[in-house]
Amino acid sequence: MANKSIDLNADLGEGFGPWKMGDDLAMLDVVSSANIACGFHAGDPDIVRATVQAAKARGVAIGAHAGFPDLRGFGRRRMNVSTAELENMIAYQVGAVCAVASLEGYPITYVKTHGALGNMCNDDDDWAMAVGRGIKAVDPNLIFLVMPALASERAAERLGLAAFNEIYADRTYDDSFNLTDRQLPGAVLHDPQEAVAQIAAMLREGGLISTGGKTYPTRIDSVCVHGDNPESLAMAVAVRQQLEQAGFAVKPFAARA
Amino acid sequence: MANKSIDLNADLGEGFGPWKMGDDLAMLDVVSSANIACGFHAGDPDIVRATVQAAKARGVAIGAHAGFPDLRGFGRRRMNVSTAELENMIAYQVGAVCAVASLEGYPITYVKTHGALGNMCNDDDDWAMAVGRGIKAVDPNLIFLVMPALASERAAERLGLAAFNEIYADRTYDDSFNLTDRQLPGAVLHDPQEAVAQIAAMLREGGLISTGGKTYPTRIDSVCVHGDNPESLAMAVAVRQQLEQAGFAVKPFAARA
Amino acid sequence: MANKSIDLNADLGEGFGPWKMGDDLAMLDVVSSANIACGFHAGDPDIVRATVQAAKARGVAIGAHAGFPDLRGFGRRRMNVSTAELENMIAYQVGAVCAVASLEGYPITYVKTHGALGNMCNDDDDWAMAVGRGIKAVDPNLIFLVMPALASERAAERLGLAAFNEIYADRTYDDSFNLTDRQLPGAVLHDPQEAVAQIAAMLREGGLISTGGKTYPTRIDSVCVHGDNPESLAMAVAVRQQLEQAGFAVKPFAARA
Amino acid sequence: MANKSIDLNADLGEGFGPWKMGDDLAMLDVVSSANIACGFHAGDPDIVRATVQAAKARGVAIGAHAGFPDLRGFGRRRMNVSTAELENMIAYQVGAVCAVASLEGYPITYVKTHGALGNMCNDDDDWAMAVGRGIKAVDPNLIFLVMPALASERAAERLGLAAFNEIYADRTYDDSFNLTDRQLPGAVLHDPQEAVAQIAAMLREGGLISTGGKTYPTRIDSVCVHGDNPESLAMAVAVRQQLEQAGFAVKPFAARA
Repeated sequence: MANKSIDLNADLGEGFGPWKMGDDLAMLDVVSSANIACGFHAGDPDIVRATVQAAKARGVAIGAHAGFPDLRGFGRRRMNVSTAELENMIAYQVGAVCAVASLEGYPITYVKTHGALGNMCNDDDDWAMAVGRGIKAVDPNLIFLVMPALASERAAERLGLAAFNEIYADRTYDDSFNLTDRQLPGAVLHDPQEAVAQIAAMLREGGLISTGGKTYPTRIDSVCVHGDNPESLAMAVAVRQQLEQAGFAVKPFAARA
Repeated sequence: MANKSIDLNADLGEGFGPWKMGDDLAMLDVVSSANIACGFHAGDPDIVRATVQAAKARGVAIGAHAGFPDLRGFGRRRMNVSTAELENMIAYQVGAVCAVASLEGYPITYVKTHGALGNMCNDDDDWAMAVGRGIKAVDPNLIFLVMPALASERAAERLGLAAFNEIYADRTYDDSFNLTDRQLPGAVLHDPQEAVAQIAAMLREGGLISTGGKTYPTRIDSVCVHGDNPESLAMAVAVRQQLEQAGFAVKPFAARA
Repeated sequence: MANKSIDLNADLGEGFGPWKMGDDLAMLDVVSSANIACGFHAGDPDIVRATVQAAKARGVAIGAHAGFPDLRGFGRRRMNVSTAELENMIAYQVGAVCAVASLEGYPITYVKTHGALGNMCNDDDDWAMAVGRGIKAVDPNLIFLVMPALASERAAERLGLAAFNEIYADRTYDDSFNLTDRQLPGAVLHDPQEAVAQIAAMLREGGLISTGGKTYPTRIDSVCVHGDNPESLAMAVAVRQQLEQAGFAVKPFAARA
Repeated sequence: MANKSIDLNADLGEGFGPWKMGDDLAMLDVVSSANIACGFHAGDPDIVRATVQAAKARGVAIGAHAGFPDLRGFGRRRMNVSTAELENMIAYQVGAVCAVASLEGYPITYVKTHGALGNMCNDDDDWAMAVGRGIKAVDPNLIFLVMPALASERAAERLGLAAFNEIYADRTYDDSFNLTDRQLPGAVLHDPQEAVAQIAAMLREGGLISTGGKTYPTRIDSVCVHGDNPESLAMAVAVRQQLEQAGFAVKPFAARA
């Protein structure tokens, strides 16, 4: 049944040159969609290629994970750029990664924003629209993977891009349906069972549930898990196992488009 | 008459961030094809965009000018990479620049290699094939702008890519039909009249003419001119004027494909 | 007479790899102190060396001009770093440039902050202290070239660093003795005569004079002029000429330490 | 007894931004000297600082490990630069890292060259002299840590720099006393006992011993071990244990200068 399948996505290909970030191959055995870094906040053409190859071999869907041009800061620092610059840097990154994926004959099906750029796009409609225009210029059939209820979802709708919705496995939501500020208690869920309980509740409810008990009805297509260290990998594995035990088939949202 | 038209191409969009290289707008009034730097040896997404816009406004054809990832060295230093890495970096650059051009609805029609990467591709069939595969992955209809008689032309033929041929306005050719070594006397033509005389002779002859008097019959589609300093810009202007006076229409080779 | 000599400083060595910014040699004939970019927002080891050589040949004093690690943005974008990171990046840049200057046997005598980093240090005591600690670690005898009345001057005093004070030739001051916001009318002086009149008035007054007529008594050691384009170079030349006509000897403040 | 002490050195601080390389803290418990990457092939100001802190806390001597400006290639690709450029980039890196170390009040005592730059300096006297001049400009009391019998040792002597000699724990030597080519069998020693046997033989013999049985009499001050992966860390630990069992005290060569 369609309402009993779910996608798991994670950030992969986040090495650079000689450096690795997390255990990509282990994570590719857990997730159904891989957000591949595009070379601006992490990644390089060879890492993109290797990640595409490994994803293809496992039937994992691939997306372009676009970020700020800031390797040192891993795209986590806000950067003061114009929406024109933003549009250009999104098209550049998405086009680049789509091209490398073409070398494997395995297409990029979606785009997600990374780090500080992602946060800024959640909060600002002009920014989200610039990102959407950058995606659409590369291929209007690309899916925009977004957090529901925020600016990116609105931008996708205005631009006629397909939007798929993700929730975070290990984060709670405040009453504006944005992620609870990391500074606040209860912002991060450390226990896989708790995480799966929240995911299952939202899937059952058909929408986001805030810590204050509010609900935002929305389709939920994907769950974002992390795998950049041994603890987060263990969490991702546990989330997948418990989702499967709860009767969910884990498969790419993109394939259901 | 078709045999009385010729393309002029030049390297443009070679700034980076706050820095400029040459007078791009002046050059865009002289040439019919613009080789746009892709962000590895020069250029950035915003400069690509601005160069595409200015070329579109003038009906100048645009190509992706791919180079080594070496801003400090401007892609002029040989870099020891594998053919696998080369293939990836070409696809990445070409895909990136095609995407930014899409934002203007003005497509990239050809690809050319820059600097040390270009030299290495002229000399080595494996390298030229890697570049060709990178181009083809992005779009098999892209034209490969090559120096005739060398490895890149052979690679294009083997891969089924359209190859268009260029000669250099201000350089002479040795008996292997490669450029005369810059260390040797007579390698560079400083006089526009001399340059145009050589171009006209090659076009009349229907092929390359070496300093030793040998000929290599080949179609000549384009003439490469430089414009990165006031002297080279004056040379480019003079070459165009004299070609027009000699009855040649200057127009993009890509349009004639 | 000491009160009739003045230093002129300008930002130099702001190229990168193949790219130039302004006409450094022309400016070195105008100024008495050269703020040399350290390779983070602009500059590279070879440009540092060449700038030191040219300054030494003309008896122009040299300073390390430290900025954010952001070539693309030329150090003009605010960057969210901690004071610990700031301290480290200042020491790194200053130490690097002092070392290259040592190859010429011509020492760096002062440090100035560039662009957005400079603005942030003017406004924030913690930031200014971090910069001061970075300078002092390299050499406690280095002078901190600062805008008077702001955080950098206070930091220098607290750390026991010599502070020398600069004013801007082409900018007016608001009543908080910071530069008038560029968005406001009258923020920038375009007429050399007007600029020199303001400089002369401040030197005569012995302090800053705001557009609102307030004064902040302070020693004025140097005037910052720009030279990154032909118009700014002409302004710099005019400022020097008129200062000399007004009886000021233009010489390095550092030599007067 | 002086002839029963030995230094162990390893390459540390080789992360960049968010990325780590090996387990630096574990290695700092094994070695007596830390070669700290300077930000060109790896490292950044914050990683330099953290590595200096951790080394100081353990009494481990610190050196500047200078390499090519090539993060993507980790300084392992040969780079075509002039000796003038080389001299500048060495001074820049060494000065930068000395400055960051000053923030901890714990001085850099030696310099070593990394990767392809190191190989090129072993083979070419002009290159080694350029490196030596770069070191000397920063501080003529800095030690040049070199492979004996090669160009760097000669350069140190000509420039009056103190040279200390290292051998590689896990590599054999050919009859020219350079490292055996990695392509050849027996180039790399995988067994700690074999490695320690070679080290002990060379220390006993008082010089290098080639695979062909030739000897090059020389003082041996340090043994280079690797720790960038779990296997190499285990090797380093084993080498240290066996050296201590064989009666060698492991301590910084620099302290014995």
